[in-house]
Amino acid sequence: MNDFNTLIKEIVRFRNERDWEQFHNSKDLAVALSIEASELLELFLWKNNEDFKIDKLKEELADVLMYAFLLADKHDLNIIEIIQDKIRKNAEKYPVDKSKGNATKYNEL
Amino acid sequence: MNDFNTLIKEIVRFRNERDWEQFHNSKDLAVALSIEASELLELFLWKNNEDFKIDKLKEELADVLMYAFLLADKHDLNIIEIIQDKIRKNAEKYPVDKSKGNATKYNEL
Amino acid sequence: MNDFNTLIKEIVRFRNERDWEQFHNSKDLAVALSIEASELLELFLWKNNEDFKIDKLKEELADVLMYAFLLADKHDLNIIEIIQDKIRKNAEKYPVDKSKGNATKYNEL
Amino acid sequence: MNDFNTLIKEIVRFRNERDWEQFHNSKDLAVALSIEASELLELFLWKNNEDFKIDKLKEELADVLMYAFLLADKHDLNIIEIIQDKIRKNAEKYPVDKSKGNATKYNEL
Repeated sequence: MNDFNTLIKEIVRFRNERDWEQFHNSKDLAVALSIEASELLELFLWKNNEDFKIDKLKEELADVLMYAFLLADKHDLNIIEIIQDKIRKNAEKYPVDKSKGNATKYNEL
Repeated sequence: MNDFNTLIKEIVRFRNERDWEQFHNSKDLAVALSIEASELLELFLWKNNEDFKIDKLKEELADVLMYAFLLADKHDLNIIEIIQDKIRKNAEKYPVDKSKGNATKYNEL
Repeated sequence: MNDFNTLIKEIVRFRNERDWEQFHNSKDLAVALSIEASELLELFLWKNNEDFKIDKLKEELADVLMYAFLLADKHDLNIIEIIQDKIRKNAEKYPVDKSKGNATKYNEL
Repeated sequence: MNDFNTLIKEIVRFRNERDWEQFHNSKDLAVALSIEASELLELFLWKNNEDFKIDKLKEELADVLMYAFLLADKHDLNIIEIIQDKIRKNAEKYPVDKSKGNATKYNEL
């Protein structure tokens, strides 16, 4: 098993066994995703940049990804497609010659 | 192309062409992920649960996923593995009989 | 003018002149607050701890505070009271002798 | 006691008794603020707009405000001033005639 579809199916099965789809409207999925991203961030609070517990990172990152995948699944979004599209757009906003070695946001380049 | 590894390689290539790895410490990647999740959430602000623009959702979800994948890549985390591990843990915290049709958090079950 | 009540009245007047109270249910105010906190955080993304623009910080902090005050106003919460109550609770969770010079979260003390 | 300065002094005293100022760089305060805003938001996850526990709301709102005040204090920002300045700016971005009864973001007005 090494593709998105199989993995997303496992997540959806877990959800459906618990009858949780009724709660999973798009807005609350976005709220849940934002909360999980914040829990991941909390691992680094008051800490140096690489000072964190890897086991916690794995769990929090998994939570973030699961809500992201549920949101994609709900709207039949193809993860590979949306990421490749976004990379293409970012390549226009951040041309290599202007942005190389430079973390400035595109609207300030 | 339908697996994680190839996709992550594309994201990393985009990043490396711009020499941005120097900015991508773990803490700032977690900050970036949290900011992108918040931008996705903003699509729903003052709106009903399913009232959003699908094109914007695609872009913001792609941004969230890209930072999540970069964080996984930085620490050689296998996305499938960490999600399957988390599903197993969640299955213990949320047994089907207690949590069916019930969105209560596990520590209040 | 140096008290909360007068300031909150100004914020509420601005809101009411625009007829925005209809959008300000508690959940969306909480979403808005979280988004503004994230915009404030973005000032520090890819930056060192004290490397930010003070004018931007003022604006983003004002946004955060305004939504926090609107939420308090909606539920007739007395800001001074809720903060003093929380300080009292935190004093129990973080006794000086255990937490001095120590940023560990109370449940790990 | 009904003004900001006295309240902020109480918060700072609590902090200094625990020798926590050393952790309170601006970036981590912004991270903490964002995490607390997210915990407040969690009260509404999978819930209707006004379905929350008021006691929890008080606590989470107090946490948000304390970090906002600590950030203001660190940079000698006058809370009343920054909010009044922001209201003035918002009044330009959202003129009453264009924004009345309309939650559209200023850049889409």
